[in-house]
Amino acid sequence: MSELLTKAKLAKQAASELVTKSTEQKNAALAAIGKQLVEEMDYLLAENKKDIEEAKAKGTSTSLIDRLTLNEVRIHDMADAMKQLVELSDPVGERLEAWERPNGLQIEKVRVPLGVVGMIYEARPNVTVDAATLCLKTGNAVILRGSSSAAHSNKALVRVIHHALEKTDIPVDAVQLIEDTSRETASQLFTLNDYLDVLIPRGGKQLIQTVVAQSSVPVLETGAGNCHVFIDQSADEQMATDIVVNAKVQRPSVCNSIETILVHEAWASRHLAKLAAALQEKGVELRGDEAARQLIPAVHAATEEDWETEYNDLILAIKIVATTEEAIAHINQYGTKHSEAIVTNNDESIAKFFTSVDAAALYHNASTRFTDGFEFGFGAEIGISTQKLHARGPMGLPALTSTKYIVHGTGQIRQ
Amino acid sequence: MSELLTKAKLAKQAASELVTKSTEQKNAALAAIGKQLVEEMDYLLAENKKDIEEAKAKGTSTSLIDRLTLNEVRIHDMADAMKQLVELSDPVGERLEAWERPNGLQIEKVRVPLGVVGMIYEARPNVTVDAATLCLKTGNAVILRGSSSAAHSNKALVRVIHHALEKTDIPVDAVQLIEDTSRETASQLFTLNDYLDVLIPRGGKQLIQTVVAQSSVPVLETGAGNCHVFIDQSADEQMATDIVVNAKVQRPSVCNSIETILVHEAWASRHLAKLAAALQEKGVELRGDEAARQLIPAVHAATEEDWETEYNDLILAIKIVATTEEAIAHINQYGTKHSEAIVTNNDESIAKFFTSVDAAALYHNASTRFTDGFEFGFGAEIGISTQKLHARGPMGLPALTSTKYIVHGTGQIRQ
Repeated sequence: MSELLTKAKLAKQAASELVTKSTEQKNAALAAIGKQLVEEMDYLLAENKKDIEEAKAKGTSTSLIDRLTLNEVRIHDMADAMKQLVELSDPVGERLEAWERPNGLQIEKVRVPLGVVGMIYEARPNVTVDAATLCLKTGNAVILRGSSSAAHSNKALVRVIHHALEKTDIPVDAVQLIEDTSRETASQLFTLNDYLDVLIPRGGKQLIQTVVAQSSVPVLETGAGNCHVFIDQSADEQMATDIVVNAKVQRPSVCNSIETILVHEAWASRHLAKLAAALQEKGVELRGDEAARQLIPAVHAATEEDWETEYNDLILAIKIVATTEEAIAHINQYGTKHSEAIVTNNDESIAKFFTSVDAAALYHNASTRFTDGFEFGFGAEIGISTQKLHARGPMGLPALTSTKYIVHGTGQIRQ
Repeated sequence: MSELLTKAKLAKQAASELVTKSTEQKNAALAAIGKQLVEEMDYLLAENKKDIEEAKAKGTSTSLIDRLTLNEVRIHDMADAMKQLVELSDPVGERLEAWERPNGLQIEKVRVPLGVVGMIYEARPNVTVDAATLCLKTGNAVILRGSSSAAHSNKALVRVIHHALEKTDIPVDAVQLIEDTSRETASQLFTLNDYLDVLIPRGGKQLIQTVVAQSSVPVLETGAGNCHVFIDQSADEQMATDIVVNAKVQRPSVCNSIETILVHEAWASRHLAKLAAALQEKGVELRGDEAARQLIPAVHAATEEDWETEYNDLILAIKIVATTEEAIAHINQYGTKHSEAIVTNNDESIAKFFTSVDAAALYHNASTRFTDGFEFGFGAEIGISTQKLHARGPMGLPALTSTKYIVHGTGQIRQ
């Protein structure tokens, strides 16, 4: 039997044991993992060093090597994260609804674990610990498939997790790492419907698109972010400038940063030159449509491609619009249904924007950078869903659960 | 441009208009559809007759022809169903959660339409009206792809729906019927990710499996039902008999009927012969494992295939078990995660069964036949989900919605 199938069977078996475990048993396991990570720090750093050296030998970029790197501080951070995860309330067992039918049947809808979660991800070894522990907290078994570039680190981290689980009531088999990092193994996960309840890809656009296109296992799509700020006619100049600068500059590489601003022509004629200067001062390259370049002539011309691009970089496209409707139409055509903001003092514009923009998170007078499980107050984040089924936007622990109807009868039969 | 792509674009455009429509506008459209169905009854019956004649010429079975048939009563039933749908509360716009963050951001989670729903289904023309109107009620556009055997009826029904919508504020393009019923068109729906937000197959196992395996559009799986009743040691004899007979006999062709009973050996030795006689009296063919055949020797031997089969017929497999755990293990191995029942007076058995059986609906001392949107009191049903993401069990109107986060700020930026 292949490594994948063997481990999938073990994970499924572990999942059936996990549903019987209490919140206390799961929390004890999380605490044990935090402790073990610190205790085996030297081993983790030594194994991580092997990945780093291989990456350096391959000429990997400094920023990717930084993402790959474990150090004392990062391992202590992981251990601290376990303490926070223990504190979060356990969604499993929560009674969402309860009612009685005229025939006396008592129906309850309760939260249950999903079962076995598959996770395909790139580079960062901290995702290994994150995914494993969020799944354990919600009573799920997990099959991890990380990238070859972090192979030593991931193997070491899962070994440490197993050492911790051995001391607890949680089955060691609940956390499985697929050590074969070939493309073929990844593809086999896509059709493992008998063993996997959901597949979560975390990584670049290419990875996510491949999983969505090829997986028959249901996917939780955590996606790309081509986000916008629309500056309406009545927008406060300083507020609009602060929000646009923040949403573009504060961390340009992440999905909730913006790529294009849509500016009402009346606001643009008064304030666009100053906004452009503020952005350029922060090192942002601007690309404008024709109307924008009338007002800020020095910037490059934006093309169709710019409207479609998630730069993930200090580049911003600018389009002048005549109405709120035009801004909404542009967002719905080019956006990725992630995070969209309007800056305005006009109630009618707000209402139109909130009703008609099709995205996971809509903001009035705030930066798109808040689309994040921690910023929303969830205390944890599995990812940000850009799909519409099951979970949309920042996903906290409940996104890793399903439900069951529990029906109590006294002998009822259907007429 | 192909018929499919043209209609998909129209549906998407209509969906963007639908989000701006009020509950009153949607309800007025539903009422108009009910009225129009009755007004154009002669036309509908004439078109339906064409399908029936073609089916007869092909030698289609009487039961399939019955499913295909429209008549005055059935059309009046459809019109009555519209009145009931108008009465149901509109989930769209419902505020599910609202909270404030320490930085003053006000976050709301509200229900919104999914967008464009794709529906692939077999034979019955009433699904055309059902799907279209449940989608309209929840603000969704719909692309319908019925079977060739109901082509005339479906075309006529959608024409009548369009005639009704022309008199209302709801765009006619919100309901699209794909008239090309070739397999190729169905397959094209599977990858229409740019236009479809969800695909719902309704029909046989083959259809559903094909959609699940091949669709990159997210699927709401409405599935097969290999359901069980477990009769525990302490089960009341009469209650167990009534529930098993009801769950098998009342309507054997549907997914929430049972296919296998698991009987505790202690109960079996006392009561199985009488239960078997009660079933046989109703015309049920029994197939037993070795232990069962010791007690009721005349029945056929059950094979591995029997445990896996959804008979949809008056056939029932019987397996004797020594413990609740053995019953649970059998259900989790062979069940389709649909509906599972335990008949018992033992609290420990109930707790084990509810915790460990992995299915959408679990029953204590009641028939599995209650897994149904109407029996649950939802007032409508899109289908019964056997998947774990998004919706599980009977799906009412909320299953046709997604959510949005609406965030109100006063200029907040991320630090």
